[in-house]
Amino acid sequence: MISIAIDAMGGDHAPKQIVEGAVLAQKENPGLFKLFLCGPQDIIAAELKRLNYTASDIEVFHAPDIVGMDESPAAVLKTKPNSSLVACVALQKKGVVQASVSAGNSGAMMAACLMLLGRVGNISRPAIACNIPAKKPLVMLDMGANVDEKPQVLVDFATCGSIYAEKSFQLENPRVGLLNMGEEENKGPDVIQETYQLLKNSPLNFVGNIEARDIFSGNADVIVTSGYTGNVVLKLIEGFYELHFETFGVIDSESGRDFQEKWDYRNHGGALLLGLKGTGVIAHGCSDAKAISTAISYAHGFAKNKIAESIAERYTGEQA
Amino acid sequence: MISIAIDAMGGDHAPKQIVEGAVLAQKENPGLFKLFLCGPQDIIAAELKRLNYTASDIEVFHAPDIVGMDESPAAVLKTKPNSSLVACVALQKKGVVQASVSAGNSGAMMAACLMLLGRVGNISRPAIACNIPAKKPLVMLDMGANVDEKPQVLVDFATCGSIYAEKSFQLENPRVGLLNMGEEENKGPDVIQETYQLLKNSPLNFVGNIEARDIFSGNADVIVTSGYTGNVVLKLIEGFYELHFETFGVIDSESGRDFQEKWDYRNHGGALLLGLKGTGVIAHGCSDAKAISTAISYAHGFAKNKIAESIAERYTGEQA
Repeated sequence: MISIAIDAMGGDHAPKQIVEGAVLAQKENPGLFKLFLCGPQDIIAAELKRLNYTASDIEVFHAPDIVGMDESPAAVLKTKPNSSLVACVALQKKGVVQASVSAGNSGAMMAACLMLLGRVGNISRPAIACNIPAKKPLVMLDMGANVDEKPQVLVDFATCGSIYAEKSFQLENPRVGLLNMGEEENKGPDVIQETYQLLKNSPLNFVGNIEARDIFSGNADVIVTSGYTGNVVLKLIEGFYELHFETFGVIDSESGRDFQEKWDYRNHGGALLLGLKGTGVIAHGCSDAKAISTAISYAHGFAKNKIAESIAERYTGEQA
Repeated sequence: MISIAIDAMGGDHAPKQIVEGAVLAQKENPGLFKLFLCGPQDIIAAELKRLNYTASDIEVFHAPDIVGMDESPAAVLKTKPNSSLVACVALQKKGVVQASVSAGNSGAMMAACLMLLGRVGNISRPAIACNIPAKKPLVMLDMGANVDEKPQVLVDFATCGSIYAEKSFQLENPRVGLLNMGEEENKGPDVIQETYQLLKNSPLNFVGNIEARDIFSGNADVIVTSGYTGNVVLKLIEGFYELHFETFGVIDSESGRDFQEKWDYRNHGGALLLGLKGTGVIAHGCSDAKAISTAISYAHGFAKNKIAESIAERYTGEQA
């Protein structure tokens, strides 16, 4: 059975919503996975007691230190090995769990995964990948882990995204698009134009440039972009949904509830780190119990589908 | 009185919607400006006749050649001086009109303005500026005229945007923000970090980084970004509005109609070219009569507020 570590103290609504999310995940997926809640023993135990949860499929792993949202990732790794966040990834490194989820300091989570789990083979940089609720399943990356990527780095993102889409969406030959400011191959910044040529000559199923207007259209299964632009895309979607919500609230109809379910970032399971020897999920800082439960399901699917292992095999032949 | 040239043959719905837009603009703003519709005399005359329009505040300027949406801007300038598009800017160059509007080939419009009107002083590159219907008036630039801008180019955009906001929104010291993937000054690509330092030490009222989630928040009057990212922002807003529209249509309430009015790009007046010796407006290719009428109002305001002249003065002391 797959085990997953959860940073019980990470996020705006920790520990209450995180512990509730773990309980919810177990209620919705009985017998599917075991969870380890990492954080101060007494605090987590009190939360579980409050929820009358006594089943053995949630275990508490004592990790008393707390990581602040603004702490430098390097400092966290150095000075807080007993923090709830680092403890999750350390459990994964030891093989106790197969995936980690944190809604805390995302830079620290990235650094912990990078340092403790490590990159696969000769992959240049890990990326943050997000599922976008487009007309067909879509994964987009990088959503903010990197800046100033060279073309080959973007090609690595495309390869990781393609393997992810293949395994997660059950697609044979995922269509890979490149976010650009026009459809023609001579459009865009130099780095994007060079990436276009590399992708065109790669074994990937490259379908060319995708304009931002067409992100949601279902014309690609994977969209590759720089971390800077990906972050702008992700946050702009949040901002525009927020405008919609401020204007209309949740519209009381099937499509209204569906729209909210899809686009309210509070419902999102979080982002996946691709290119690591293992499974790390960064949940949104404002995650509530439902979002945490979704993030746990993502982590489970990611570990079960052996996506990290598949990426490692593609890159090196080695087992992650 | 200000005169404005309109490319009657530019855009998906030309000449019908363009000529109707010119008529609408005159009906809504009687006595405010004179319009020159550029294009084949007989075609435009037939459209005006169809609309029973006989007033002398719309004149036809015969320009028989047509510019395709995919024609190379350089080729258009060289081979089609008698096209409806080039004729507009040529009339402006001669001083017959003070502004030009085209919903046609935007690259050709940019090139015509750049070659015939010219850049102001030592400004590096002209930019495309768009009004964004945020919580307070907001102008964003560059929205796609440039790629791979150096930091000083982005500072020029900021200066142009600041002057535009000052004149158009009647603000004393417009707040200039820089689109970035975090609020801290050490976030983002190298070019953005360098631009941050230049802006911090400039005479502009720089308010720091703005995340994409906060574009609509009213925290800045001007937001500066690269042409690539600006284009992604603009098209993503279009795409997300389209999703909203496909799901809900125009929601039948005051706020629903207001939301559509604001966010449906079909209603937008178009983009302004900043940094040129004159006024050029690029309307959306799919503009209908209402959008063209709005674009004409934009062009009028831009010319009346002498924004091009103010930018020229700031840069060189010369009169545009």
